[in-house]
Amino acid sequence: MDIGFIGLGKMGSRMAERLLDQGCEVVIYARNPDSMVPLSQKGAIAANSYQEFCSKLPSKKIIFLMVTHGKAVDEVIAGLLPFLSAGDIIVDGGNSFYKDSIRRAKQLSKKGIEFLDAGTSGGLDGARNGASIMVGGNDSAFRKAEPVFAALSVPNGYALLGPSGSGHYAKMAHNGIEYCFLQSLGEGYELLEKSGFNYDLRQVTKVYRNGSVIRGWLVDLLARALEKDPKLDGFSGTVGGGSTGEWTLRSAKDAKVKMPSLQVAMKERARSQKTPRFNGKVVAALRYEFGGHEEPKRPVKKKAPAKK
Amino acid sequence: MDIGFIGLGKMGSRMAERLLDQGCEVVIYARNPDSMVPLSQKGAIAANSYQEFCSKLPSKKIIFLMVTHGKAVDEVIAGLLPFLSAGDIIVDGGNSFYKDSIRRAKQLSKKGIEFLDAGTSGGLDGARNGASIMVGGNDSAFRKAEPVFAALSVPNGYALLGPSGSGHYAKMAHNGIEYCFLQSLGEGYELLEKSGFNYDLRQVTKVYRNGSVIRGWLVDLLARALEKDPKLDGFSGTVGGGSTGEWTLRSAKDAKVKMPSLQVAMKERARSQKTPRFNGKVVAALRYEFGGHEEPKRPVKKKAPAKK
Repeated sequence: MDIGFIGLGKMGSRMAERLLDQGCEVVIYARNPDSMVPLSQKGAIAANSYQEFCSKLPSKKIIFLMVTHGKAVDEVIAGLLPFLSAGDIIVDGGNSFYKDSIRRAKQLSKKGIEFLDAGTSGGLDGARNGASIMVGGNDSAFRKAEPVFAALSVPNGYALLGPSGSGHYAKMAHNGIEYCFLQSLGEGYELLEKSGFNYDLRQVTKVYRNGSVIRGWLVDLLARALEKDPKLDGFSGTVGGGSTGEWTLRSAKDAKVKMPSLQVAMKERARSQKTPRFNGKVVAALRYEFGGHEEPKRPVKKKAPAKK
Repeated sequence: MDIGFIGLGKMGSRMAERLLDQGCEVVIYARNPDSMVPLSQKGAIAANSYQEFCSKLPSKKIIFLMVTHGKAVDEVIAGLLPFLSAGDIIVDGGNSFYKDSIRRAKQLSKKGIEFLDAGTSGGLDGARNGASIMVGGNDSAFRKAEPVFAALSVPNGYALLGPSGSGHYAKMAHNGIEYCFLQSLGEGYELLEKSGFNYDLRQVTKVYRNGSVIRGWLVDLLARALEKDPKLDGFSGTVGGGSTGEWTLRSAKDAKVKMPSLQVAMKERARSQKTPRFNGKVVAALRYEFGGHEEPKRPVKKKAPAKK
């Protein structure tokens, strides 16, 4: 199977590598040719323009995008469009806002081009070893692109969830839950840290991750982070990110759904950048473990010049 | 190995059964003899009084309690005390408040009786198939009772976390995280339910539980609940429980830790009993799945008598 892949960032490069592993022919394109070198060395076919990229793909193309949400997605689609024809499929695997995905699907359908929104979860590990993919779009396009989803995900890790937008919407809800899970762990671990019991958090986490009600991947990742840095001293406790959380709150308002925990999680991220606490160290460590996200730089207070 | 076991409720009866499976001799006692019948039939040795219970255990007794927190624990300890001697060990596997555990350990130590607080997680499934056990107390008592913890838990599912109280404290922090996780899932699933996409929540959950960032046991349990009841129609959305959450908030105040998500989760449980939402159906379904907890009865409004 031939797949076109655009967007070779932390997630995309790993996903392209996984497709190569699974025996796919992967054609890649990036504006900066250097970013294509590692994948070319692993067998991907690099192209130097949208035109060349499309010419190296068969008719009935499947093109997977893993680019930053917003303008970048529209630019890539505009770049590809002159070289696409009816029956081709674009899959947006990034974290796009679902209303943008609905708009893009409509625009492309006028030219007979199919568009699938595919929210992708599982972090860097998942990108390389099997992700979770929430797909929105029409059934026929989904069936055609299904081998790509199967190659990229863990067993039972993908499904068509509904019409255009429903994949990215489900991913957005997932991210809302994720924000809250992170905040929950941050609060619980700060309670442990400040308990006076002088816990070895690695030992607590060993028990939490085996057999408890809260066991799951995030607790596993916390164990990994604590193994490297038992008190998370390497983190200042400032938490970045937040765009999908904002979309989620906006969508909750539209749908008249109350999400008070998500509001708290968002506020706490903002607060962490002014007055970091242990709470934020846990959240920052987890975001680093799953996504490779670095803590945002805190504004450095200028010291008053020393008196001479 | 001989173990005494008191407290044959939903959790305790399953744990005693697991101990029998693991080849332990289990001596049981309950005020109501009927509650001992099922376990007796599976090989447990039933006793009709604290005295008989203790007489059937060897010297250097290990007695595991799984009774309701508060007065009941003190009553059972008082009942046992005349028949115990130095070197015997009482393990409190229930959800006791950690300060009570510290007090009990001190009192018992005056008579040379050892006391371990052992927070037990994993719900009914865990009680039967292997739990997660957070132990507090002194090292020598822990080593003597360790085979019991090993028999009751999953691999790597138990550890001594610190001195008296630290086991129940770690369980309390775990429950704080659990409350928040439940609330997080409730909010996210309400967003899905009210999205207008008419999701099949079973399909969404299939993807969430395989390969995603939020995957874990609670998402697995939600899949189980939705398999039986795809829209959770069997739940009204009222959420009960809350005592360990109250302790957690109190302890957070003592330790000057902010737990705004837990405050939200507690408020939402209270609110759910007046104005239930889909949110609460998810939380109630999960509490039923892991703990067999029924929804609280809502106050039924009296209808005005029909005019004749």
